[in-house]
Amino acid sequence: MTILTVGSVAYDHIITPYAERTWSLGGSAVYFALAAQHFSDIQLVAVVGDDFADEDAAMLQSRHIDLQGLEHLPGKSFFWKGEYLANWNDRVTHDTQLNVFEAFNPKIPEAYRKTSVVFLGNIAPELQLRVLEQMDEPGLVILDSMNLWIAKCMDDLKRVLKSVDHLLINDSEAQMLSGKDNLVEAAKVIFDMGPKTLCIKKGENGAMLMHDDKVFIAPAFPFCNVVDPTGAGDSFAGGYVGWLSQAPDLGWENLKKAVIFGSIMGSVTVESFSIDSLKALELAQIRDRYDTFNQLTQFDALKESDRFLQKGPSSAS
Amino acid sequence: MTILTVGSVAYDHIITPYAERTWSLGGSAVYFALAAQHFSDIQLVAVVGDDFADEDAAMLQSRHIDLQGLEHLPGKSFFWKGEYLANWNDRVTHDTQLNVFEAFNPKIPEAYRKTSVVFLGNIAPELQLRVLEQMDEPGLVILDSMNLWIAKCMDDLKRVLKSVDHLLINDSEAQMLSGKDNLVEAAKVIFDMGPKTLCIKKGENGAMLMHDDKVFIAPAFPFCNVVDPTGAGDSFAGGYVGWLSQAPDLGWENLKKAVIFGSIMGSVTVESFSIDSLKALELAQIRDRYDTFNQLTQFDALKESDRFLQKGPSSAS
Repeated sequence: MTILTVGSVAYDHIITPYAERTWSLGGSAVYFALAAQHFSDIQLVAVVGDDFADEDAAMLQSRHIDLQGLEHLPGKSFFWKGEYLANWNDRVTHDTQLNVFEAFNPKIPEAYRKTSVVFLGNIAPELQLRVLEQMDEPGLVILDSMNLWIAKCMDDLKRVLKSVDHLLINDSEAQMLSGKDNLVEAAKVIFDMGPKTLCIKKGENGAMLMHDDKVFIAPAFPFCNVVDPTGAGDSFAGGYVGWLSQAPDLGWENLKKAVIFGSIMGSVTVESFSIDSLKALELAQIRDRYDTFNQLTQFDALKESDRFLQKGPSSAS
Repeated sequence: MTILTVGSVAYDHIITPYAERTWSLGGSAVYFALAAQHFSDIQLVAVVGDDFADEDAAMLQSRHIDLQGLEHLPGKSFFWKGEYLANWNDRVTHDTQLNVFEAFNPKIPEAYRKTSVVFLGNIAPELQLRVLEQMDEPGLVILDSMNLWIAKCMDDLKRVLKSVDHLLINDSEAQMLSGKDNLVEAAKVIFDMGPKTLCIKKGENGAMLMHDDKVFIAPAFPFCNVVDPTGAGDSFAGGYVGWLSQAPDLGWENLKKAVIFGSIMGSVTVESFSIDSLKALELAQIRDRYDTFNQLTQFDALKESDRFLQKGPSSAS
């Protein structure tokens, strides 16, 4: 099924301990769409300026990403300049220029309004809400958010969460949103806000999925040679939502698979600068990485014949 | 099969952000033995001073831990005073008194020499070597080590590693020992030193097992309410070696299970001060936690019917 997504399209200036690139296509919607298009057609709702390159548009369109919802405004596109320090965990933002994004008021083309899968990328909750209001009862709504919006726009965020099925955030954001340190308790609070499924992204420490009383934990895909972490979370969302958009059903087994596809997409993105490896990704690699992930993490259940763990505390004192 | 282990028996003064205990039984051999005794009988080789309490001896003996190899010397037992800071990752050692441990020269009782499973706890490689020299061709030798010995006693460590089947260390230690940042490459270097199986403990980030070209990764058991991390690594070793000591065979499936039992034992230990929860652990809880671990981490392989991931990069530009 087609996925409608709203988010940012940006040009990034990225500095890592090993390299630097001054002008590369980025933004949450771009990473998301390039990952999710392996599963479904994408309708992209975002805004760009005069500097948006024709070849970038062509590259996206060649990958089943529809740009009818990509608004063009006079001025410059969203620009971000950031630097990763040697441990990869600390990121310094040198410059953020909202530019045309400041005036962004998402307008959903008529042709998009009945799309049944909606991914609300990590932008102001007020804008996410405006997108949802224009949609005609989507069947699956998934939202990404961050600490900034939790701190600044909690009321708007709570309003939009009421109509959301899945929430994707990281662990500290789940704690911040719920006021609970323990992630199981945090999930309960968040379930009461609207979403019935919570996917907690933990970067290099993997991800955790919660739905009803069920929990799934997955390590990050190992052996990534990290070149540039930009867009890892958005790519994760692309794999996650992409898989769900065409899964045979939304039962627990398929929800778990969504986490694996998310992790795979995140792992691919970080292995090169900007969108390079994501753009070059082929279906066979996704399948290979899924199989590898499965082999790396699966182990036997305890068998009846294993029930001979020899001893309990004997005459425990 | 019975396990012979050598390590420290100590009294600890532990300070956490929430509590403090001034005198509690600890030491690597104690944590190891209390975890491993759920699987096999234990022969403990260590040294204590005059202050070693009769009730501590009785508690260990009541759990199938043989103390014939526990030497008593005049003076005080090994004493460690440490403090955990609020993030649990930083540990400050306020005081280490080796006391009788300084003169420790492990002597293996005649009755222990044919024991076929040997766990060389985290002590000076020279002492580990002396233990091995007194053993009569054990079938399975597993060694724990740390950065201190890699930095100070590399020659001795390399000598003992030649006779070791499994090495348990953490990720930075594997990198330090091998001179390789990439853990897959680190494993290859370490395999050439002797051990054919490498288990890398990553604390709250789980564990990684490598053998031949095979890799297994397991997250840490989640939802632990950390009360005191002391002994987590030694308890991990207890579950790991304990399971292997009586596994039906040492094939890959059983090696993976050893990691799970190790993680379970580590998770139990950190949930209370000192050895409290490990001492109270019952067999049913180990089984429950294994089942939970399995449910939390298992997901379906990609099915043939899933091979409809819709799209590859179409006319990739």
